[in-house]
Amino acid sequence: MTRVHVWGASGYAAVEAIRLLDRHPCVELGVLESRSHGGDLVADHFPSLRTSTRRFDREGSVVEHLCGGDVVFAAGARGEALALVPALIDAGVRVVDLSADYRLDEDVAYGLTEWNRAAVAAASVVANPGCYPTAALLALLPLATLGTPHQIVVDAKSGITGAGRTPSVGSLFAEVSGDVRAYGLDGHRHQPEMERALRAHGLAAPLLFTPHVVPLSRGMLSDAYAAYAHAPPEREIRVAFEDAYGGSPFVRLLDAGRAPSVRAVVGTNDVELRVDVRGSVVRVLCALDNLGKGAAGQAVQNLNVMLGLPEETGLQERAVV
Amino acid sequence: MTRVHVWGASGYAAVEAIRLLDRHPCVELGVLESRSHGGDLVADHFPSLRTSTRRFDREGSVVEHLCGGDVVFAAGARGEALALVPALIDAGVRVVDLSADYRLDEDVAYGLTEWNRAAVAAASVVANPGCYPTAALLALLPLATLGTPHQIVVDAKSGITGAGRTPSVGSLFAEVSGDVRAYGLDGHRHQPEMERALRAHGLAAPLLFTPHVVPLSRGMLSDAYAAYAHAPPEREIRVAFEDAYGGSPFVRLLDAGRAPSVRAVVGTNDVELRVDVRGSVVRVLCALDNLGKGAAGQAVQNLNVMLGLPEETGLQERAVV
Amino acid sequence: MTRVHVWGASGYAAVEAIRLLDRHPCVELGVLESRSHGGDLVADHFPSLRTSTRRFDREGSVVEHLCGGDVVFAAGARGEALALVPALIDAGVRVVDLSADYRLDEDVAYGLTEWNRAAVAAASVVANPGCYPTAALLALLPLATLGTPHQIVVDAKSGITGAGRTPSVGSLFAEVSGDVRAYGLDGHRHQPEMERALRAHGLAAPLLFTPHVVPLSRGMLSDAYAAYAHAPPEREIRVAFEDAYGGSPFVRLLDAGRAPSVRAVVGTNDVELRVDVRGSVVRVLCALDNLGKGAAGQAVQNLNVMLGLPEETGLQERAVV
Amino acid sequence: MTRVHVWGASGYAAVEAIRLLDRHPCVELGVLESRSHGGDLVADHFPSLRTSTRRFDREGSVVEHLCGGDVVFAAGARGEALALVPALIDAGVRVVDLSADYRLDEDVAYGLTEWNRAAVAAASVVANPGCYPTAALLALLPLATLGTPHQIVVDAKSGITGAGRTPSVGSLFAEVSGDVRAYGLDGHRHQPEMERALRAHGLAAPLLFTPHVVPLSRGMLSDAYAAYAHAPPEREIRVAFEDAYGGSPFVRLLDAGRAPSVRAVVGTNDVELRVDVRGSVVRVLCALDNLGKGAAGQAVQNLNVMLGLPEETGLQERAVV
Repeated sequence: MTRVHVWGASGYAAVEAIRLLDRHPCVELGVLESRSHGGDLVADHFPSLRTSTRRFDREGSVVEHLCGGDVVFAAGARGEALALVPALIDAGVRVVDLSADYRLDEDVAYGLTEWNRAAVAAASVVANPGCYPTAALLALLPLATLGTPHQIVVDAKSGITGAGRTPSVGSLFAEVSGDVRAYGLDGHRHQPEMERALRAHGLAAPLLFTPHVVPLSRGMLSDAYAAYAHAPPEREIRVAFEDAYGGSPFVRLLDAGRAPSVRAVVGTNDVELRVDVRGSVVRVLCALDNLGKGAAGQAVQNLNVMLGLPEETGLQERAVV
Repeated sequence: MTRVHVWGASGYAAVEAIRLLDRHPCVELGVLESRSHGGDLVADHFPSLRTSTRRFDREGSVVEHLCGGDVVFAAGARGEALALVPALIDAGVRVVDLSADYRLDEDVAYGLTEWNRAAVAAASVVANPGCYPTAALLALLPLATLGTPHQIVVDAKSGITGAGRTPSVGSLFAEVSGDVRAYGLDGHRHQPEMERALRAHGLAAPLLFTPHVVPLSRGMLSDAYAAYAHAPPEREIRVAFEDAYGGSPFVRLLDAGRAPSVRAVVGTNDVELRVDVRGSVVRVLCALDNLGKGAAGQAVQNLNVMLGLPEETGLQERAVV
Repeated sequence: MTRVHVWGASGYAAVEAIRLLDRHPCVELGVLESRSHGGDLVADHFPSLRTSTRRFDREGSVVEHLCGGDVVFAAGARGEALALVPALIDAGVRVVDLSADYRLDEDVAYGLTEWNRAAVAAASVVANPGCYPTAALLALLPLATLGTPHQIVVDAKSGITGAGRTPSVGSLFAEVSGDVRAYGLDGHRHQPEMERALRAHGLAAPLLFTPHVVPLSRGMLSDAYAAYAHAPPEREIRVAFEDAYGGSPFVRLLDAGRAPSVRAVVGTNDVELRVDVRGSVVRVLCALDNLGKGAAGQAVQNLNVMLGLPEETGLQERAVV
Repeated sequence: MTRVHVWGASGYAAVEAIRLLDRHPCVELGVLESRSHGGDLVADHFPSLRTSTRRFDREGSVVEHLCGGDVVFAAGARGEALALVPALIDAGVRVVDLSADYRLDEDVAYGLTEWNRAAVAAASVVANPGCYPTAALLALLPLATLGTPHQIVVDAKSGITGAGRTPSVGSLFAEVSGDVRAYGLDGHRHQPEMERALRAHGLAAPLLFTPHVVPLSRGMLSDAYAAYAHAPPEREIRVAFEDAYGGSPFVRLLDAGRAPSVRAVVGTNDVELRVDVRGSVVRVLCALDNLGKGAAGQAVQNLNVMLGLPEETGLQERAVV
């Protein structure tokens, strides 16, 4: 049993990770360090974990309790992992970082599992991708071998848990309900992460990314549009997607009669993709759970790969959301 | 044109008051003082006021710009009005206080308009009632002349704007959606306000009040149950309600086939009441908008009474919510 | 492996039953008969079952495939079970009826599991209680030995799945969102079911029941108020609840600092209860999932009792909702 | 006072039209014909019109009461207007058709008001545009003089009232909440309407349109992406939008710091547009109310133009939604 600590344990993604780790058959839940909630019962803050008897641990607990061979899920605020991770590595511990801190670091394995299994398996530090990049990249990377589009547009619709659990006016019920709004119109911090991964796979087309918040707690639908001079043949595209995801337990390619749906994936690590060609545009819709495959689910999937376990270990049940 | 200043101008109730005052035919919108938002465009924080060109004024602006004859809507946090209001009175200004600060003060007019017109008309300071007390009292006070129940239960379901616009975890979209929760089970700060007003009208029965948050931005449905040894005759109750509200432009008594509905009152100063007798219980359902009749709407209604205007002046349009 | 057929298989409660039965370790999912959806893939109608490969079976399939020893979950519209069940009994099959058809029948076991285990274990037909009666009775029955209140009021707030999946204007998103409404003010069909069960346990007090719809898909919070001349001592009440539910794996009694929450029970067969005494009123709040403990969860719990299995068999995971 | 009849009066758009016409200073509300609701009080079906005392009129009422000079708002189901309108024209009546029946008819004025004032002013029949085309065309038509993009993508997010008030499973609260879904992936009936209007203005680029339903009653955000070999200069684009909408009372061009928001337009006839250039893509976001500018609001705007009234007559208040 590998012990897994959660550092920054009281955000939405961290708590989803706790839920998954707690029922994972091959790992043991370690320290749950939270600066803000240290000492409190998990059950008192998260009704969906009401039957848990665990408490959040106080600041410093992870470092205090580290043993070689442990794994740490780092889920801190922006910048915090940079200060923590080097010491963890020195202590012989492996890290899955759920923040954005290491996602642009060339020396760190980028944990988009389906596209990076070997690097993840060997890594000391895995940079777990953001939810928007996960959705966009799963939709676009299979196209990399089929020529370069002259333009890519990604239009994503996300639930508000993507903005985290730190209270802000923009995340209030009275602000999110009844509204749909785009944001980051002048540049979103997830765009460089997408661009770097696209380039790394040879998809060097210009990318325009527009994220939106819709009145939804959890889940995401991302529409990717790749415009070509001449679109690749639909049959070749289909083959490329089947090659990319045929062996992946979490990715479902939908047929023409079906559309990806947030309800079909929420609470799971699943991904629904539907690809079609409309004139000279390849359109790929992708639905996933921003806290599942877009965060904690993929972190556990990466953990499984790091530990040499089947990818779906501990990921076959659905969460309540 | 009486000038009306809003002090504490960037909360939900204050902004609803700004909207109402702005289109009120007989008043002029004065200073909009906000400690947190001073200098910002109102339109940038409140999309429903996007066409407004006003800015929030900085701290201290109300006192700076006071003239005798002005009115101030005080919408500060708990306790703040106590420090401000005496100076306003000294400056010859009348005040409608939307906070709870003066609601238990015997020397201040309690602004439950339908039951206190004369006192409001003459008052220097009007304590505008809370949303829960407004709903409970409008439902119960007509029963005062018909004998004393041995027990009153009020079970209220409120939208989350009642908790204000200061960010807190409990008001986040991801916490409010998908949940229904009671709170204040060990005592809610609005209960003494209800009890005092009931006693003042001779309804000295014990009161049990249970507030709930439901996944709703705005609006409230409050069910009042008065249990008697023998309930008053339904016909007498009907007469009592008609006597109480026959001349009130905002209170609608619904017939047996209809039920009060939040959608029927939200964005207005309207109140829907339905009363029936079930065995020895008189049940009165009351729907109102917690930001309308439960806050800003009633504040403007009180302003109208203070200024000798028809009560419905400036209150005949609906807000978008 | 007992085979369990679902008859009337395409409503919300039936589909939740399918989900539960499908992962139940000791039963085998039989026929899924649906008049309206016969022949269609379950996955095409219910995204949360997207990975299912089952189809709904056509009308008549259950009767066609019956073997002695099977169990049928009957989830038809009102009145339909009365025509079906006698033939099933003749065929040596046991039935859990999720409709209201048998709930007032003295000869049929009333499946409020915690209060009727022996009768359920021996029954040919179990009348699975309605969601409102389940919540009200679990809250009130422990009080039966502590004297008779002079009045009981039950004020319940329910998600809209309680109204079923047959399209109607009142269940549309655009009608339910932004509203809270009471209904059945002149009598709700669940009230006789509650009254009968209360009387059967010696709680003969008059009952006033007010159901409400709130903007919620799934879940219910029900507040029961029992008004006494003198309320029983809080300590005795506590003991009565602990005696009633101490051995029940699904019922949680909350302490004073906590309130029942829909989020804490949704997707499960769990129940949260909190009881307190306020003056001469005993107030009991009850949260449950109307499709879980209020329908399909309790049906599986009854099935377990009928089959001599531990009550929690197959009920330990949460559904996504 | 011109008399305006509403035919097909009980859908969401028709009822919004009734609300607007009722408070319009220069028209008189005529017959409200509804096949399904004839004889019923409007107030009993639509809580937001609770204070109305009008009843829906029975089938055939419009034709029975026609006088020359009247106007008819035709809001029937698909195909119904084709059977009705010729007789109305013969009777000397002008028609605004809110259905799709006449939108592809070359001989009928297409009522995208900002782009067609002269034709609307003179028309006997105005085909009121659909909500999706209104949003897409207002976003794209100003680009027509600036060269032809090689591809246009429109990705729209709509509230569910766009699907009408006829009950269907897909419009149920329990299906819409918690989900985001694309639909019409193999072709949406609004696409030919968009394409025809784009071509008519010289924008002959291929169009890919993806509509989505989000958990929202009312409102729409539509993102239009026009991909060029070389995008027009941002300054010229700005001028083109200012030229197009400078005199339009309902269209707001937002500056770089702001994003269009559903909350800013819902309940009004307003439109928010924001245009920017990102590489070789011109991105135009458009927010409007699908029942306002996307249906009933624009119908009244067209009525005003037909009657020679200022466009904003009767459209300056917000609806409660």
